[in-house]
Amino acid sequence: MYEGAVQDLIDELGRLPGIGPKSAQRVAFHILEADGEDMKRLADAITTVKEKVKFCSICFNVSEEDTCRICQDSRRDSSLICVVEESKDVMAIERTRSFRGRYHVLGGSINPIAGIGPDQLHIRELLGRLSDDAIQEVIIATDPNLEGEATATYLFRMLGSIGIPVTRLASGLPVGGDLEYADDVTLGRAFEGRRAMS
Amino acid sequence: MYEGAVQDLIDELGRLPGIGPKSAQRVAFHILEADGEDMKRLADAITTVKEKVKFCSICFNVSEEDTCRICQDSRRDSSLICVVEESKDVMAIERTRSFRGRYHVLGGSINPIAGIGPDQLHIRELLGRLSDDAIQEVIIATDPNLEGEATATYLFRMLGSIGIPVTRLASGLPVGGDLEYADDVTLGRAFEGRRAMS
Repeated sequence: MYEGAVQDLIDELGRLPGIGPKSAQRVAFHILEADGEDMKRLADAITTVKEKVKFCSICFNVSEEDTCRICQDSRRDSSLICVVEESKDVMAIERTRSFRGRYHVLGGSINPIAGIGPDQLHIRELLGRLSDDAIQEVIIATDPNLEGEATATYLFRMLGSIGIPVTRLASGLPVGGDLEYADDVTLGRAFEGRRAMS
Repeated sequence: MYEGAVQDLIDELGRLPGIGPKSAQRVAFHILEADGEDMKRLADAITTVKEKVKFCSICFNVSEEDTCRICQDSRRDSSLICVVEESKDVMAIERTRSFRGRYHVLGGSINPIAGIGPDQLHIRELLGRLSDDAIQEVIIATDPNLEGEATATYLFRMLGSIGIPVTRLASGLPVGGDLEYADDVTLGRAFEGRRAMS
């Protein structure tokens, strides 16, 4: 519809996740009208990230070096490994400041429809880490959805069979939410997981 | 939160319109994991658009040349000018194929709170075009919101005073919508603008 370069930009933006045709157009016009220096910084940030950022050779978190800051940090408890799907889950848990162990990023979750089985995830590398270290606990923090639960069950069976203690993050009512708006499954889980008040 | 290059990219993406912190993070991780060639094309598209795309010297629509394709097209009726706020409005009207005249892009709408008055828009240039050509009608197609209506009223008074016929796009019920879901103002306008059936 638009002349060459504008349409090219709209097309490229429209391929990004969560950006539909309307917002691709809106962002493209913003870029067109914005300050040239700002937009050069955006283009450079894309190029730089592709050049500089790799994945940690131990935990597969994003990192600019061979091993990430968390794996390098000797103050972190290496007997605890928290298994997550993506690097952004590491950041979400780090923000809570309630975990001082290490991580292992699977790179996704088991999803047979999308053709992702255990072999497409970094599960073999997780097993390698478990044989090396004196692991006391593996905390499974995959998403509380169908694929995340399937992945958690798979890991639990596999790690349980080799005698490693495995835990799963609690499911229940979100803090600050209304009970009446909770879905049935969440409310059911909150009942199952109820705890004695102290 | 993230290491250098990833956080830089999240920051730059978060400055784009309609992209909040969560989607900036999501898009950044997509870029990180996507094919290098695809992401080079995205970065290049941003750079190219800033280098190549200008605004038409006649109508201020986006254009890669001094005058845009519509202003260059001799088959378009130059006695009709449709005034819009942005280039994307030109595209929206072109898609309807119901207008064969020319356009004038104001570059926004009158918005005193944001400090945008008539002098910040391409109104002087519109007056220049009206004195040159044999204009039969100016169709005002600014947005049907507060700022767009204020701009339409301003233009109507100014152009009316120099004897140019001015029309405004009809307001009313959106085709395919439900009457009960229309807001009060739209329904009111639909009543005011009712037409005899034929």
